[in-house]
Order: sequence, then C-alpha cells, then structure tokens
Amino acid sequence: MKPKYLKIDNGNAKIRDFSLVDLAHKYGTPLFVLDQKELIDNINDFKSYFHSNLFKSNIVYASKALLVPELVNICNNNHLFIDAVSLGDLYVLKESHFEMKNVVFHGNNKSIDELKFAIENDVIIVVDNLEELMMLKELNPSKIRTMVRINPGIEAHTHKYIQTALNKSKFGINIEDDEQINQLMKIYLNNSNLVLLGFHSHIGSQIYEKNAFLLNADKMMRFSKKISDLYQYHLSSINLGGGFGIKYVEEDQGLDLKDCLNALRDRIEELTKELDFKLESVYIEPGRRLLGASCITLYTCCNTKTNLGGHKYLFIDGGMTDNIRPALYQAKYHMDIANKMNDEKNQVFDVAGKCCESGDLIGTDIHLPNINPGDILIVYSTGAYTYSMSSNYNNMLKPAVIFLDDDVKITARRQNLEDLMILFKNIQ
Amino acid sequence: MKPKYLKIDNGNAKIRDFSLVDLAHKYGTPLFVLDQKELIDNINDFKSYFHSNLFKSNIVYASKALLVPELVNICNNNHLFIDAVSLGDLYVLKESHFEMKNVVFHGNNKSIDELKFAIENDVIIVVDNLEELMMLKELNPSKIRTMVRINPGIEAHTHKYIQTALNKSKFGINIEDDEQINQLMKIYLNNSNLVLLGFHSHIGSQIYEKNAFLLNADKMMRFSKKISDLYQYHLSSINLGGGFGIKYVEEDQGLDLKDCLNALRDRIEELTKELDFKLESVYIEPGRRLLGASCITLYTCCNTKTNLGGHKYLFIDGGMTDNIRPALYQAKYHMDIANKMNDEKNQVFDVAGKCCESGDLIGTDIHLPNINPGDILIVYSTGAYTYSMSSNYNNMLKPAVIFLDDDVKITARRQNLEDLMILFKNIQ
Repeated sequence: MKPKYLKIDNGNAKIRDFSLVDLAHKYGTPLFVLDQKELIDNINDFKSYFHSNLFKSNIVYASKALLVPELVNICNNNHLFIDAVSLGDLYVLKESHFEMKNVVFHGNNKSIDELKFAIENDVIIVVDNLEELMMLKELNPSKIRTMVRINPGIEAHTHKYIQTALNKSKFGINIEDDEQINQLMKIYLNNSNLVLLGFHSHIGSQIYEKNAFLLNADKMMRFSKKISDLYQYHLSSINLGGGFGIKYVEEDQGLDLKDCLNALRDRIEELTKELDFKLESVYIEPGRRLLGASCITLYTCCNTKTNLGGHKYLFIDGGMTDNIRPALYQAKYHMDIANKMNDEKNQVFDVAGKCCESGDLIGTDIHLPNINPGDILIVYSTGAYTYSMSSNYNNMLKPAVIFLDDDVKITARRQNLEDLMILFKNIQ
Repeated sequence: MKPKYLKIDNGNAKIRDFSLVDLAHKYGTPLFVLDQKELIDNINDFKSYFHSNLFKSNIVYASKALLVPELVNICNNNHLFIDAVSLGDLYVLKESHFEMKNVVFHGNNKSIDELKFAIENDVIIVVDNLEELMMLKELNPSKIRTMVRINPGIEAHTHKYIQTALNKSKFGINIEDDEQINQLMKIYLNNSNLVLLGFHSHIGSQIYEKNAFLLNADKMMRFSKKISDLYQYHLSSINLGGGFGIKYVEEDQGLDLKDCLNALRDRIEELTKELDFKLESVYIEPGRRLLGASCITLYTCCNTKTNLGGHKYLFIDGGMTDNIRPALYQAKYHMDIANKMNDEKNQVFDVAGKCCESGDLIGTDIHLPNINPGDILIVYSTGAYTYSMSSNYNNMLKPAVIFLDDDVKITARRQNLEDLMILFKNIQ
C-alpha cells in the first residue's frame, strides 16, 4: 500500500529525504515516482525467499506492468530476466541495453517478424501452441532456447479480466491435450536446434491464495516429469509464471510473499525428491509484486464540487488516461494528501479525472482531509498497469516517470503538445 | 453497422471501388479505414434533419470520438463546430488549421493554462461550475463567449460508464441548484466581457430513446426561459449535447436519426412558440453517430486455436490497444472476412488480440467462415472511441488511419518502433 520508506515530516510526506510536494512542484503533475531503494529491496526479497540449494532461481520481471529504461537497467544490474510480449517490447529492451539472452518472449500470437527478431537476439521463446512451433521450425534457426506454455487448468481467484488459466484461455496448450503435446514433442525430438528448456504456466493475476501457486507447481512438475520420461527428453527448467498479489487497500487480503515463496520453493524441492526429477532452473515471473508499493502517482488537486444532493467530487489533473485500472478492472486505491498527512480525513470524495466521461474516476468514496486547490494527492501502489496502459484519450498528455535513487532520475519525460502531432506529420 | 458504400465483388469487400484487401496489403494492418463520402453524407443528414426556419442549427462534432487532421479539415470545410476537452485537443485543432472561433471547449476541470489558451483563441468555453467561472473572471478576458453546463437530471438508458447526466455526475450544475445558478448569473450580470450564450446539457452516450432527447430539450428550454426572464439576460443559444446511438450489432435497437432529429427540431420549434422564447442558435454534439458506420478496422488473421474443450480462438494482429471498448464497456461488434464475404459463416470464434491479458478479446462468439492465416478481418463501426483511446500497452504500435476520398489519404501514420523510445530520449 504505502511506500516502505514513506515518512511524515511536519505533516508532509517524504520518501526517504525526498519531499513529495517538492517533487510535484519541480517535475509537474501528474507524476509517477518510483523509489528505487524499495524496488531493489523487493528484488532481493524475491531472490532470497525463493532461494534454493537444489535449483537456480530465475526471477523474470513481467514488463507489461511497467517498462521504462531505468527499470531495465535495474533489472540488468540485479541479474533479473525480463519478459516481453511484442516486437515493441523486444525493441525497447534492446534499445535500453538489456542482456537479450535474459529475455523471455511470451505471447499467444507471435508474428514472423517477432520470431525472427527473437531468434536474431537469442531470447528464450515461450511457444504458445503447435502452429507457432511449426512457424519457428520453418524459420530454421540455429540453436534457440524455447519453453512451451501449458494451461494447467487452474482458476486462481482474481478478476475475470485478468484470469489467464481458465480452460478456455487464449493462452497455451491444455495440460491434458495429449495429442497436441505429442505432435509438439515429435518436432522437438526431430529438430535439435529447437531446444525445449521446459514448460511454462501462468495461472492468473493479483492472486492472494498461496495454495494456487503450490497446486500449479505440483501439476507442472508432475507433467514435466511425465513428458521427460515419456519422450526421453531432458528438461532443464520450469517456469511457474507470476500473479503474486499486492495489497491496494486495507480490505485486501494480501499475500505474505515470504511465506508464499518459501512454501513454493519447499514444494518444488519436495517434488524434486519425490519424483526424482532434478531441474537446473526454476523461473517465476513477478510484475506488479516486484514493483509493489515502490511507485506512486502524484496529482495536483484542483477544484472540489458538491452536487445538489451533497455528493462530493475532487477534481485532479490526470485520470483514466494515466490510470485506466479503476474503469477497466474496478480497481481500488488508497490515497493521501502529501501536504496534509496529519490532517483528519473528515471528507469523502469521488476523485475524478479530466476526461469527458463519467467513468473517469480514480476512486470513489475516498476519505481525505479538507482540500485546497494546489494540494498534492498521492495515489499509492500505482506502478503496475498504469503508465504501461496510458493513452492520449482527449489528447491528455502522458505524465513523466521519475526514479528516486540518491538523486532523481527522469526515465520518461512528460509528453508535450508537439508530441500529439507526431503521427500526423511527415506521413507520405 | 456496415459502411453505406460497402459492396461485394466476387466475394471480396469493397468500399466504393476500394478493395479492402488491397488497402490492408498496401497500408498494413491493423488499419482504420474511414470513407469520407459516407462521413459527408452523415454530416449532411445531421444538417438537413435538424434544419429549422426558426433557429440556426449548429452541429458540433464531438472530437473525443476521433480527432485526426483530415477529420478536422472535413469539419472545417463543412462548417461544423468541433468540441475540445483539453489543452491537447485545442492544440491539435489549431495545428490542424481549424477555425478556432468554432470550437466549443468542454471539461469538468479546466486548468488556468487551458482557459488562457481558450481565451487567446476565442473559443466558446462551456463553464462547468461556479469556481470555474470565477477562475475565468480572474483572467479578466476581453469579450469571451461562454455557455454553462447544466445537469438536467435525466438518466438516459446507456452503459453505466458512459452515462453523464445522473444527479451525481461530475459534470455541470444541477438544474435545481438555484443558489449556485444565482451566484453564477450575478457574475455574468456584473461582467459584460463574460458573455453567456446559453446553457449546455448532455444526457449520455449511445442513447436509442428519442424521448430522452425530447425531454432534455423540454427541460433545458424551460430552464433557459426561466433564467432569461428572472435575470433579464438575453440568451441567444442552447446546446443539447450528443449521445445519438448507433447500431453495432443486429440485436441493437438503434435510433432512427431522421425521426429523432426531426422530432427534436419540432419540439424546439413548439417550445419556442409556447414559451415565446426565440433562440438564434441550437447546438447539438454528435460524435459517434456522425462517424456512424463510415469507419472500420482491418486486421490480418493469424492462427486459429481450438482448446481441448472445443473452444475456438481467432488470433488477430491488433487488440485492446487499438480498441479497448470490448474490455472497458463490454462492447459488441459485427465482423466479416473481407476476402470471404460470400462464404458460409460456419465457425464460431472468440477473436483475441495479442496482449498478454485474457480480457484482450475484440469479440466473443463471433460467427465467421473457415479462416486461413492472412485472411483480412473487418470489424465494423469502429470510428468512435477506438483510435482516440489507443495505447501502447505491451508496446504494441498504434495503427494507421486512412481516409477514402477519390484517393487514399493517410491522416495518421502507423507508429514505428523508434516512436516507442521518444519519451525516453533527450530527457534532461
């Protein structure tokens, strides 16, 4: 919920020694602010909680949550893998100087161009289905590392739009689809340049149920062992995906990360012994949970408005263009006023954005203190699926993204008006 | 639903003489294709169905639906007004050489910079509330034309996210809020440079109920007359907003535009006489309905996939990044295969985009013929709230937008990979 190093100094919010009000004034609002120190703590938590003496733990950052160059640097420097879903993702990773052999390339529908780029850059390709493997084979690559996405048929408790492991999911091959798996394994057995590292699964997003992860590990380990034996194929790895939930608001159940990752590691170690099935590497793919509470959005409060019936609105200088999650997923956020951290929260507002759309609300029934125009609103835990999904609806401009290290680093500059015309100029 | 000038030539879809398959091959996919001839027909329909001998009919194009320079040209050449909601909108309109005095500037939360730009460019400002009028007054403009947004308390039948006239709407002043209206009128009476042309209302989106529009006209005309008498203030205009629904799929009830606009005009004329209240201009603000069926999206079909349970997916080369309406509003679309227009639709697919998200579906249970990779999918009636809401989620690239006149005009070029890095370069 709140950043780990958030503190209150005379009623003003700071992250470490950075005053949030000062950041808002200096860099403008809306502003995404990510505390690099907390992010690196999160990375180290993942590494240590999932550390095993039996296998190598590969932490893959799920970049669809947020992909900006400074984050790529941090992943690189901390020896993380990063996933990608499109040619655009691959391009941004390469331009940001990421170690491309540590890219895991996902997607239900990869194009020839995407596969070619992936091959040229020696990324790990997560094959979605048989047709895709045949496309890959046709490209006749020299040695290329692949995984195959399996749908293990586990429904984790999560919002309907962000479940991905239903039996009718668009992703992967059903774990019981013996015929397709048989055809696929025959291709691997006959093409030594196509290296199958192991199988991948992903059971959903924002999961708070530890047992869902354990069940997935169980099913996928047993499946991998079965295939390895049946086809006498050496599988070095398994990828158990992501979905580790974060707490947005107090009511959220949350997921104890240490407990979950320790238990997941222990289960994999037990299965290793029980099945006599030793894996070199186990991949997990946190996105949102790796960012955790390290990233917030700052907005400037504008007017408030009380309708005739007494319903109150707080208007802010951003909205659904920089955070579509409330409209798209009915997502809830915790909020504070950065310059009134000690004030009593005696008001209840709907926090409304600037778009010409009634659904442009960042939050409803939000408890806040009395508001003056110019107050700085903090929306917590906005690292994931906000900037990455941002749009120019109503020709609103995309915010800047800054990272707090010892100094402030701007990793994405604020859009300006001229940027709005880029696609309309030099056309033919 | 289908473009007016769509025809089938030997199983292939054409708009007039433009082969859609040829357009897809020449300009790439995903591709937005707008038939300018149909758009101009729609404009002329609005003008003629709403023509009156008692008042001037001002058709305001609601640009949040789609704002690209070629569309601005067409509006300019056909003497339409255009609305704007942000500084970005105003900037794009000005850069596209629109006659700025014909801009109607909306928004629940205008900034000082936006108001200044609006004043400098002599646009009509639709004041949302009392605080905004006071901000405007503080800027001490020379003569500026304004309207005031009123919430008439009419709930039109429409999707919850796109209703705007609930009593708890973020927009406007409640029609019964006598106190706020009194304060507001006093400001107008004391500041002759602030010219109140009249009141504005907007009761929702995708409305099929003619009576909702008539009721709104009735309430707003009586309200305007009352205020005009009470404060002895000459009101020259009224703005009744938009919300004219279009048919997306066969099951949609639809709205007979001629019937609706004729009835609306007749009602206003009756009220003019009944109330002895003569208006010079009546504004209406169609967005989606003005585009109507003139714009389609073309996608290239990639692989299909049949899950173990028999559930079928058709994968396309775009998705929620170019059309978020199915995910955001549970919107439904009609679809065809451009090169198989006469083939029997013997298959049922969920049409899935490329994003790493199960909710990335452009349609569910869509009846289509047998698919081969490379087939061109037409999604009909995609002009509104698609390109304008597009994002770079998963670093997907924004499609091109082409207009069909006598020739093809590219009005927005396709994004390229380099564009993805623009906000990450030349930062400090």
